[in-house]
Amino acid sequence: MSEKLYETTIRTTPIFQGKIIDLEVQDVTLPNGKESKREVVHHPGAVAVIALTPENKLILVRQFRKPLEKVLAEIPAGKLEKGEDPLECAKRELEEETGVQAENWTKLHSFYTSPGFADELVHVYLAEGLGEGMVNMDEDEFVERIDVTLEEAEALIESEEIHDAKTIYAVQYWKLRG
Amino acid sequence: MSEKLYETTIRTTPIFQGKIIDLEVQDVTLPNGKESKREVVHHPGAVAVIALTPENKLILVRQFRKPLEKVLAEIPAGKLEKGEDPLECAKRELEEETGVQAENWTKLHSFYTSPGFADELVHVYLAEGLGEGMVNMDEDEFVERIDVTLEEAEALIESEEIHDAKTIYAVQYWKLRG
Repeated sequence: MSEKLYETTIRTTPIFQGKIIDLEVQDVTLPNGKESKREVVHHPGAVAVIALTPENKLILVRQFRKPLEKVLAEIPAGKLEKGEDPLECAKRELEEETGVQAENWTKLHSFYTSPGFADELVHVYLAEGLGEGMVNMDEDEFVERIDVTLEEAEALIESEEIHDAKTIYAVQYWKLRG
Repeated sequence: MSEKLYETTIRTTPIFQGKIIDLEVQDVTLPNGKESKREVVHHPGAVAVIALTPENKLILVRQFRKPLEKVLAEIPAGKLEKGEDPLECAKRELEEETGVQAENWTKLHSFYTSPGFADELVHVYLAEGLGEGMVNMDEDEFVERIDVTLEEAEALIESEEIHDAKTIYAVQYWKLRG
C-alpha cells in the first residue's frame, strides 16, 4: 500500500566529501510525478552507551559541541570507524571517554537521528558491571566525565545542559527500567 | 571549569546553501592548541507532535525518507519556516499531515538530534483534545496516517518501522505517562 509514498532518484550530484559526513543533492520524482530536490547527508553511523554504575548513577560526558557553540552533557557516544562492529565501537568509546570497562552489554535500540536529511543511525547499548579500565583518551577528544543520579539527570534536562535526543531517551529508559 | 573544553574558530568556509540545510567547514583550535576541522550542518529547526486521540491511540504518519530509501512510521513533524513560532508550526504540521486539530497543547522537551555535526533542534509538543480539522495536505508531502495502541507502537519499534529517535522517545514518554 505504500508504493504511493516512494520517491525515485533521477540524478545524484555529489557536493562534499568530508572526514565525517558526505553531502549530495538528489533530483527525485515525487509520488505525484512532479520533480523535487533532496539534500542528503551520509554519515557512518554511531554508538551510544547507557552506563550505570554500581552506585546506580548514569555516566555522562560534558563535551563542547561546535555546531551549537556550547557544552552539552551526553551519554558516551562516538561514530563508527569503517567496518567497525557497533558493540566493539561502544566498548572503545566508553573506555576512551570515561576510562570505564563493562562486563555486561545489552543492545537496546537503534534509531535514525534526523531521517529527513541524514542517514545517521545510532546503536544504543546498556553497559553494566562497570570497572575502571585504563584511561585511553583519544587525542582529538576533550571530555569531562560526570556521574549523576536520576534526580540530577532530570535537573540537567530542565537546565538544558542535557539537550540532545539520545541522552533524553537514555534518562527516560532509566526511569522506565525503575 | 569547562573553558578547557572550548574550541575556537579560526576560519569558516561555506560549502553549500540548500533549500533545507547549509554546510560549512570550520578550522578550529582545539583545547590543546592543535588545529582540526569541523563539518557543521545548519538546519532551521523542527517540531514534532505527540498527538493522543480520545481512544488513547498515538497518531503516526508513514513517510518515505529519501536518505534511508525506506518508509518510516513517525510522529507528525516538520521543519520551521523562517521566523515561525514553534507552537504555530506544530499546529500547522499536525493539520497538514493528519487533518487533525487539537485543543490542548503542552511543550514537553526540545532536543538536538545530532549535536556532533548539526544544529537541528526539535521542539516536541503534546497535543490533546483532538478533533478532525480540514485536511490541508502540503503538495510536497506524501504521508499515510495510522493511529496505534501502545502495544502496536511497541511492535512497530520491534519491526523497525518505527526507527527514529523522536518517535522512540515519544513512545517512551507515553509509557511513562501511563
